[in-house]
Amino acid sequence: MELPFPPVWLRDNCPCPACRDPHSGQKPHTVADLDPDVTVRSVAGDEQTVAVTFSDGHRSVFDRNWLRAHERADDAGDGRTERGKDLWDQVEPPEAGWAAFSRDPAPLLRALWRTGFALVRDTPVEEGTVLAVARAFGHVRTTNYGELFDVRIEPDPANLAFTARAIAPHTDNPYRDPVPTLQLLHCLRDAAAGGESGLVDGFRAAVLLRERHPGHFAVLSGTPVTFAWGRLRAQRPMIGVDERGRIREIRYNNRSLQALAGPPEALAAFYAAYRAFDDLLNRPGAMVTFKLAPGDCVIFDNTRVLHARTAFGGRAERHLQGCYADLDAVQWVTSAP
Amino acid sequence: MELPFPPVWLRDNCPCPACRDPHSGQKPHTVADLDPDVTVRSVAGDEQTVAVTFSDGHRSVFDRNWLRAHERADDAGDGRTERGKDLWDQVEPPEAGWAAFSRDPAPLLRALWRTGFALVRDTPVEEGTVLAVARAFGHVRTTNYGELFDVRIEPDPANLAFTARAIAPHTDNPYRDPVPTLQLLHCLRDAAAGGESGLVDGFRAAVLLRERHPGHFAVLSGTPVTFAWGRLRAQRPMIGVDERGRIREIRYNNRSLQALAGPPEALAAFYAAYRAFDDLLNRPGAMVTFKLAPGDCVIFDNTRVLHARTAFGGRAERHLQGCYADLDAVQWVTSAP
Repeated sequence: MELPFPPVWLRDNCPCPACRDPHSGQKPHTVADLDPDVTVRSVAGDEQTVAVTFSDGHRSVFDRNWLRAHERADDAGDGRTERGKDLWDQVEPPEAGWAAFSRDPAPLLRALWRTGFALVRDTPVEEGTVLAVARAFGHVRTTNYGELFDVRIEPDPANLAFTARAIAPHTDNPYRDPVPTLQLLHCLRDAAAGGESGLVDGFRAAVLLRERHPGHFAVLSGTPVTFAWGRLRAQRPMIGVDERGRIREIRYNNRSLQALAGPPEALAAFYAAYRAFDDLLNRPGAMVTFKLAPGDCVIFDNTRVLHARTAFGGRAERHLQGCYADLDAVQWVTSAP
Repeated sequence: MELPFPPVWLRDNCPCPACRDPHSGQKPHTVADLDPDVTVRSVAGDEQTVAVTFSDGHRSVFDRNWLRAHERADDAGDGRTERGKDLWDQVEPPEAGWAAFSRDPAPLLRALWRTGFALVRDTPVEEGTVLAVARAFGHVRTTNYGELFDVRIEPDPANLAFTARAIAPHTDNPYRDPVPTLQLLHCLRDAAAGGESGLVDGFRAAVLLRERHPGHFAVLSGTPVTFAWGRLRAQRPMIGVDERGRIREIRYNNRSLQALAGPPEALAAFYAAYRAFDDLLNRPGAMVTFKLAPGDCVIFDNTRVLHARTAFGGRAERHLQGCYADLDAVQWVTSAP
């Protein structure tokens, strides 16, 4: 019986307690501890397992299904790329009440992980609640904006978010690396008129760009662009793909995008691609819209879902509080045994 | 006079106060607001500036040096890749005393940014000091390990770090995305024997791999591998490069690396590359070693610098406290005007 794995791979992945610490699940040996010329001396198996004896005398027992699952390069990935998501044009916002969410956030977080956003309703209409929502499942990512930030009209705004202007679909903090992977926005007061929230699935738009304009997709996923704000600066592509070409991270913000440098043909190609992607992000029917009522908190994946708001008027007293957090906490909660 | 820039690029990058908010530095318009067919009607200039009038009637005045700087694709990047770093085999550890650092952390952080690590000496030998060091310039990244974690022998260790074993050079938390980009380790008690700290420049080792074994470099930078611990899992390459091929992020940890899946040739190529990189990381002279004394705090770039420790003995009372933080705070402090 021959196994379709190099001997060194089999030896490295031996599941016995000496090769894989049973408590931590960690591998104590390094690649340097492995004999590169190790060979398989014998293989014997039954229906469920395969026992391998190596030239170093070690004997490993593998599960057949586990081996079979490793015969082909993994397509599903770690759940963070387009492969692990439910892409949408329109979708019913996943939601939960605050009481249920604080008791067990896992069901709503599972929806958030796949859909890219979720709403928590009926939270306390009190300053700082956004931090309590984040801490119900994860950890606040503090930045130069503080633990939380207020989104309302400011007299001398350091950011156009703090005006009554409409804000086009964007991701937050593309000028920061690592970007905050989750954003929370909690409504304390809504606007008398306008100030609606909108969300767009950036992965879906990127998939459409790849289908319809592969050349434009190649340009945007292959060109690092600089986003900057204040003292912060990051140079990353608008569409980040992994080494297998899977879409993994969208950075999109007209306000902080800096001038691209390059020869004229490259700049012209970039603008054509940028415009085509912008068209897809703003295509009719691509935005899920809702008006946050006091006590509502929206949570979204800032590496995938773009957010926007309409201009607002009336007494213009709209007041949200926001904070950042990270997706590792969602993985931690939702993959609990 | 003809400028080597597409008209739409010039129009988008107009620096006038209407096109670029003077207070926030942000661009209020989106790419959809730009006429894709905009043309340049006239160009006039003096020694320092170029005035451009567009077909839409708008007039922009550009600085000549600024234009010149944008004629070629940017090579320097945002300071986070190999291009913005001082790579080393051996280097004198940048250091500062706690008093000077708390007064003005910028000088040491500038060294940290370029060298990848720095030492703060003479900090209080008290639990929680590691958080004070992080907060002297930035923000603690809380994870499932808490705000801070203790590194000492534990009776039933969930992680091999919490034993007296030697630990090979590695980066922390490769199973987390985003990975913490900074790590701090503060010494409360040193070991009677052993327990020395070592740091290795992962970017330097990756550059050597690219020079000596370009095929191996291509394999490691092109293969997403899965790191996992407990409920966390991330699939990223060991050597992360950006879209221009610049080395940007090292993830390296034998303990949490999971079995790679794929056809036998791919697995064999991966092991050859992995071993070659491991050889370079562990090459003689590649590790800066020092023994942390009580009150010393080492800060290092966890996307670049691998850390290691020797086994320790004696009364085995070594006790460090660690925490994570992020590089954006270093950028914020060091690029202050």
